Amino acid sequence: MTTTAEVAAERTHAQKLELLAEVAVKVGLGLKPGQELLMTASLDSLALARRITEQAYRAGASLVTTLYTDDEAILMRYRYAPDASFDHAAKWLYDGMGAAFKSGAARLAIAGSNPALLSNEDPAKVGRANSAVSKAYRPALELITRHAINWTIVAGATPAWAALMFPDDAPDAAMAKVWEAIFQTTRINTPDPVAAWKTHDAALHHRAAYMNEKRYSYLQYRGPGTDFRLGLADDHLWLGGGTIAGNGLYCIPNMPTEEVFTTPHKDRADGTVTATKPLSHQGTMIEGIQVRFAEGRIVEAHASRGQEVLQRLIDTDDGARRLGEVALVPHSSPIAASGMLFLHTLFDENAASHIALGQSYSSCLRDGDKLSPEELAAKGANDSLIHVDWMIGSGELDIDGITATGVAEPLMRQGEWV
Amino acid sequence: MTTTAEVAAERTHAQKLELLAEVAVKVGLGLKPGQELLMTASLDSLALARRITEQAYRAGASLVTTLYTDDEAILMRYRYAPDASFDHAAKWLYDGMGAAFKSGAARLAIAGSNPALLSNEDPAKVGRANSAVSKAYRPALELITRHAINWTIVAGATPAWAALMFPDDAPDAAMAKVWEAIFQTTRINTPDPVAAWKTHDAALHHRAAYMNEKRYSYLQYRGPGTDFRLGLADDHLWLGGGTIAGNGLYCIPNMPTEEVFTTPHKDRADGTVTATKPLSHQGTMIEGIQVRFAEGRIVEAHASRGQEVLQRLIDTDDGARRLGEVALVPHSSPIAASGMLFLHTLFDENAASHIALGQSYSSCLRDGDKLSPEELAAKGANDSLIHVDWMIGSGELDIDGITATGVAEPLMRQGEWV
Repeated sequence: MTTTAEVAAERTHAQKLELLAEVAVKVGLGLKPGQELLMTASLDSLALARRITEQAYRAGASLVTTLYTDDEAILMRYRYAPDASFDHAAKWLYDGMGAAFKSGAARLAIAGSNPALLSNEDPAKVGRANSAVSKAYRPALELITRHAINWTIVAGATPAWAALMFPDDAPDAAMAKVWEAIFQTTRINTPDPVAAWKTHDAALHHRAAYMNEKRYSYLQYRGPGTDFRLGLADDHLWLGGGTIAGNGLYCIPNMPTEEVFTTPHKDRADGTVTATKPLSHQGTMIEGIQVRFAEGRIVEAHASRGQEVLQRLIDTDDGARRLGEVALVPHSSPIAASGMLFLHTLFDENAASHIALGQSYSSCLRDGDKLSPEELAAKGANDSLIHVDWMIGSGELDIDGITATGVAEPLMRQGEWV
Repeated sequence: MTTTAEVAAERTHAQKLELLAEVAVKVGLGLKPGQELLMTASLDSLALARRITEQAYRAGASLVTTLYTDDEAILMRYRYAPDASFDHAAKWLYDGMGAAFKSGAARLAIAGSNPALLSNEDPAKVGRANSAVSKAYRPALELITRHAINWTIVAGATPAWAALMFPDDAPDAAMAKVWEAIFQTTRINTPDPVAAWKTHDAALHHRAAYMNEKRYSYLQYRGPGTDFRLGLADDHLWLGGGTIAGNGLYCIPNMPTEEVFTTPHKDRADGTVTATKPLSHQGTMIEGIQVRFAEGRIVEAHASRGQEVLQRLIDTDDGARRLGEVALVPHSSPIAASGMLFLHTLFDENAASHIALGQSYSSCLRDGDKLSPEELAAKGANDSLIHVDWMIGSGELDIDGITATGVAEPLMRQGEWV
């Protein structure tokens, strides 16, 4: 048997980049011959964007259009633009993206921009600019979130991200480490990455199907600093891995993805939970989080660092102190095994079992997309302006599923599926 | 008095780039505070695009969005995409650009992409791709050509362009030469480029007004190999320099611009004309062009090199062997003075007096935008699928204006305005 370390050593960086691009196009996106592709990328991800462009054309793309963003240009806006600028967004561009999706284009995003780009800018301006973009992008984004088309997100290493993850390394060494972490966690360091992804995707589907068959009422968590019982929403649906989009094409929207996840019941969380990793929220690190729930609500919240930010976060609205997502990730997943904090949700939320404060996904309820807000709430779905994942999984966490009749069945022991 | 050579030597490249960006935004575009800017650029022009972005924000832009094109991605399409790809264009993107213009955005294009990028690709595919883009872009482009909004084109040096212009120089030296040629011809090497542009623009307007007042029936050209009489269209209008766009903002659409130009009469051209520069057409150089007109039509056409391409060009349609534009440029203009062939129309058409085979501009006729095709034709406006400029001016060319009563008045002597 070949180890991933051996494979990693055998291939050049260029070969791995090529494989990542191939996996992104063939497995992540599931691009159909003749289909158009709309890609977004930071200029720092040019090399990966070019490889994906090549793979897309080789896979039969009719046209690949990449919308590049430039961190320097974004910073210039904060430095020089008039105040009114920050309530403005390029609605014409987001509408154009929506039109592309409606006319059959697939969507690929390269993540990896500088997570701390705006950390020194006026938070009020950042908030206004984000809000303007959210509003302008909503109609197009809605086609993505309800999987009307095939889409995926992959990551490319960038100098700024590498400097954040590996501040003690020289720039080239830090970049090489981030790339290697990306290749490792996206299964590029396996003999046949396309086959490895198909096996992995089947396993996630199998796991979600198992959980859906079981229809547990509660999950019971036990670990260091954690003794916690979380109810699942009525008619909850576990999801994981790829999905058939509305256009009939099969895609895996996130690469990597390690989680199976569903909607918890907003009124049924009791006990104490301790986070197992720091939470990076809007440029601030919140560490040592410990929270007590009663009847779904956070009634006590502590953090050894960033307490104030945590408090402000859960005070956003009533839903901000309730849970909107529960996700199970084995401790042996490649991301957890790397032991790294990536500072990008695409990776960090796939590193460990987690829960999310705030908004729930209607797609995680049976026929959820057809339900009214009142019907969703009646089934236990949470409503909030925020959705913030935090990691509670570790190699010391045990999880049981509690059936409708109150029987406890072991699900995870020491962080691994039983 | 300071010479441009002295100014050129005093400023660093970075300072000149900054000034070019400032002139482009303030004088070329006439950006209004609060206005959005849509920029297009090759990735090779990133440095200039960033300086323009900064200048636009400093001038009060609400948002600058740059759509970058990548030559490598374009070539990958020709290398790998399926045949049907070449009838496809990103209509959603061009429609988006049109929506941006309609919602108040200004438009800046950085020219300078590789003029020979597609010279080794299948001409049939190039033609189909161009045709698909033309069709998709038409509604948005129409807002540009009828000056509904303020827009401008400036150029940035790129390695591929530099290699074509200066094949015998090392890459860095060639790039430096193209940049210097751009700075020189766009009046950046003057003590106050903004003021220099305002003076120059006023001079072009003054010249166009003079010609409009004169209302010549004919122009008479005499020079080496040229003895040529060209009738002007009824109700012709000479234009030059900046213009007030439909949105009320003053812009100078081309930087550089040296020409005053109008619509000749399609049936009134007689005699022999000899080109004074090679014509670069779709990757082929046509040299030593000599043409004889009779009653507006080319009846004999010779070229010492590229005869076949010239013949195919004028055989495109009936309008392709008639004239659609006449432009006067003094031989002392900075571009002519540089003695360089830029291989980009933005520069080369401003190097010398020229005429253009093919389609005429309705804006060069009084109320031309309101006239039907039949009314335009009745006034002498030409109609064709092509519009190809070729240079006939030199330091040895004399031009007279012939009044309605047949009086000859000297306009240019030895290539200079009288």
